[in-house]
Amino acid sequence: MKIYLAGPDVFLPVAVEIGRRKAAICASHGLTSLYPLDNAIDPAAEDASLRIFHANKAMMDEASAVIANLTPFRGPGADPGTVYELGYMAGSGKLCLGYSNDPSPYADRVARFIDVSPEQGRLVDAHGLTVEDFGLTDNLMMVHALDLHGGALIVPPHAPANVWDDLSAFEACVRMAAERLATK
Amino acid sequence: MKIYLAGPDVFLPVAVEIGRRKAAICASHGLTSLYPLDNAIDPAAEDASLRIFHANKAMMDEASAVIANLTPFRGPGADPGTVYELGYMAGSGKLCLGYSNDPSPYADRVARFIDVSPEQGRLVDAHGLTVEDFGLTDNLMMVHALDLHGGALIVPPHAPANVWDDLSAFEACVRMAAERLATK
Repeated sequence: MKIYLAGPDVFLPVAVEIGRRKAAICASHGLTSLYPLDNAIDPAAEDASLRIFHANKAMMDEASAVIANLTPFRGPGADPGTVYELGYMAGSGKLCLGYSNDPSPYADRVARFIDVSPEQGRLVDAHGLTVEDFGLTDNLMMVHALDLHGGALIVPPHAPANVWDDLSAFEACVRMAAERLATK
Repeated sequence: MKIYLAGPDVFLPVAVEIGRRKAAICASHGLTSLYPLDNAIDPAAEDASLRIFHANKAMMDEASAVIANLTPFRGPGADPGTVYELGYMAGSGKLCLGYSNDPSPYADRVARFIDVSPEQGRLVDAHGLTVEDFGLTDNLMMVHALDLHGGALIVPPHAPANVWDDLSAFEACVRMAAERLATK
């Protein structure tokens, strides 16, 4: 069974190494991983972005499941590129699993980026925009999409020292994927 | 034809009014809009987040198309909740259109939030994470998803004074949706 590995891991300086470690974990559970960096596309090439898109889409279409790394990226929430891929896989009827190495509630994380205050029964930020305050780890669409299309978002009890290096929550997703795909 | 209206507009203090204005624009082009706030769910109700998810999902499943507001939200990129919905609609084979009222390149916007510098032929942020630098308005997955599943991302020549209030780019998407859906 093939699993697409979505996540901002591809932006890390150690992106290739992380991909190899994730692939090894998948293999140890009898699963084949498809990782965006497995496509060797020169970022300086003409139309590189379009070629990367089509290569990633082909991998997603080939995979039976996705494991999305929803650890917050450049802001209080998950990487939008990763979230697009989670949505695409959900819409395609594939098994959707995900993890975040930051277990804090979304509203608490927003408060680290911008002033937040209660106002007429809701939480708002300094621009007056409502802050989702359901005690969830991120936007309700992603969190409940996982509940419906796969399994509950996996989070560690405490954020690891290096949220990009620790693959325990990832491995929990792989175990879940192996169980689910075995019964299909 | 029914169009799902995705966007962080629902977090605005004037969310209901924006929804009405968007609905009126859709109606003037012969289209019916489905807007998340059309679901009257008390945010204080038990399981409110799950009920909102299912109500939004039902609207997406009912719609033939999505118009996603990808204007940057609480960070350099689009709202992840909106992006999930765009991905879900793309995976479902629906017509996908989108706009952003901030036409600046993604890499320029990242530089407003965090130090960015060139390093060994790529652009990296202060945490060493690669910054996508293809001259696109946001992450390549969303931008090219629109190219493939609908039409190119609509952006104004210059950001309007109030990016949440100006619906010109939205109306351009509605016109495109009306043309595309008429020929189906």
